[in-house]
Amino acid sequence: MSSKSLKIFAPATVANVACGFDILGFAINEPGDEIILKLKDTPGVTITKIIGDNGRLPLDPKKNTAGVAVLAYLKHIRSDQGVEIEIHKKMPLGSGLGSSAASAVGGVFGINELLDRPLKKEELLPFAMEGERAACGFAHADNVAPSLLGGMILIRSYEPLEIIPIPTPPNLFCALVHPDFELRTADSRKVLKKEIELKDAVIQWGNVGGLIAGLMKSDYGLIGRSLQDVVAEPRRAPLIPGFFDVKNAALKAGALGCSISGSGPSIFALSQSLETAKTVGEKMQAAFSSQQINSEIYISPINRTGVKII
Amino acid sequence: MSSKSLKIFAPATVANVACGFDILGFAINEPGDEIILKLKDTPGVTITKIIGDNGRLPLDPKKNTAGVAVLAYLKHIRSDQGVEIEIHKKMPLGSGLGSSAASAVGGVFGINELLDRPLKKEELLPFAMEGERAACGFAHADNVAPSLLGGMILIRSYEPLEIIPIPTPPNLFCALVHPDFELRTADSRKVLKKEIELKDAVIQWGNVGGLIAGLMKSDYGLIGRSLQDVVAEPRRAPLIPGFFDVKNAALKAGALGCSISGSGPSIFALSQSLETAKTVGEKMQAAFSSQQINSEIYISPINRTGVKII
Repeated sequence: MSSKSLKIFAPATVANVACGFDILGFAINEPGDEIILKLKDTPGVTITKIIGDNGRLPLDPKKNTAGVAVLAYLKHIRSDQGVEIEIHKKMPLGSGLGSSAASAVGGVFGINELLDRPLKKEELLPFAMEGERAACGFAHADNVAPSLLGGMILIRSYEPLEIIPIPTPPNLFCALVHPDFELRTADSRKVLKKEIELKDAVIQWGNVGGLIAGLMKSDYGLIGRSLQDVVAEPRRAPLIPGFFDVKNAALKAGALGCSISGSGPSIFALSQSLETAKTVGEKMQAAFSSQQINSEIYISPINRTGVKII
Repeated sequence: MSSKSLKIFAPATVANVACGFDILGFAINEPGDEIILKLKDTPGVTITKIIGDNGRLPLDPKKNTAGVAVLAYLKHIRSDQGVEIEIHKKMPLGSGLGSSAASAVGGVFGINELLDRPLKKEELLPFAMEGERAACGFAHADNVAPSLLGGMILIRSYEPLEIIPIPTPPNLFCALVHPDFELRTADSRKVLKKEIELKDAVIQWGNVGGLIAGLMKSDYGLIGRSLQDVVAEPRRAPLIPGFFDVKNAALKAGALGCSISGSGPSIFALSQSLETAKTVGEKMQAAFSSQQINSEIYISPINRTGVKII
């Protein structure tokens, strides 16, 4: 058993999805992190290597999001199994793509597979969330849950934790544009107010209802009209130079809707065909270029698988 | 044409539906208002009689919710058609059952029928909303829309107005208990704060998403868990003596969920069978009785028709 090892792919995710602040997220096909796990003969969780982070992520498993998730998992199943973890960051840090979530999900999914699945996939969520807590101070689930399970996930409640997979229509494609600068989640959280106006809250939950109904009815128009955020986007947009130009470019090119991915600075747009999504992505990139900002484009359908062995 | 007349039934409605403050409502089979409209040879809207209001509602059509709705409708279609309106209030005022909405809906639906339907049913909504504005100062749609169209209605957006019918599962039954005292909508609005905590808003829109998904998936458990209101109910409950006893009685008797109907003081509970709904209603009534408060019970499936000719 000691030489047993696995390579895991954990996908990037788009959290919030405009109106669904802290309660909605979906997975995409790329980018994603690769995590290699290898069982050891001796106890202890070791992070042997992190590639692609420019040396910025901690190797200490008690501080690393993947390490924290694996440690929380092993504690729960009362195992002193040792494991070596190698993390290949295939997506930028502080990008709003759920980078820390992907590593946590990859780690905890991998160790559970190596130990022949003591827990079901969905039962791994709380441990991956502990990784998120280590990364940003709050155990939010809107990146972790879709990276784990794939698809569009609603977090109906945090206490107790309840996640609801939301069916999505077949022709929904995401254009994700990542501008070449970093926005720390903590900074992006800081601009939010602790209180919001009731009238804005009403607008927001009307759109949440509309988005869920639109997704379940395969009503693309309704999906588009519901992709509005009057709570986080107005406060975070100033942190992203050119945000409104990029958004307008996406909508003009035929996107159903466009907003900030997670806490930014990446911007996502949903479209009704792969072709439109490609055009939308190019126009968004062009708008960033006008601001002298380089960016990368990812085009993907909704990823319906989530984390997997590769 | 001058003697043409119609009798209309417009159903009572449950607005808010726990988590969906200002954006959700459904119609029930009873009670409801009856409106009799009769075309006149001469221009002018006249309210000839109001029965069942103890003389409290204004006969002046510019102040009466049904009159205002009919006047707004006639102005829109540029008609000077005269009409006499007789209103039979079959439900209490200030009860949280959408009394003013039902009269407005009955009036505007009736005149449109008498004039051979210049507008479609769903196009009547803005005029009925004007009636609501006259009654309570704000043209909200969460009573008017379900009274007009039947079923469960989501108001996705007010500006522009967009309503979304939400499918409901077959075995959903409402027990509605109306305690014998009045709560003015204005007073019930006054206790709400203009700002709410972001963390409460997140809980609320998580539940809105869960409720819509639960209704569309026919997942009764999810419907029940989502029927929570952390925004309006905690502030309005003190206005209803015995509220928590009544709610606990409903839940203990097997209700999926229970909260304030509209701005109260009526309390609704949803259950998964007619039998359970009946028991739930009785237990709720008994809890009010313990507070020396008389009440009336209405048991009904979701009304799928809305306003109609009788």
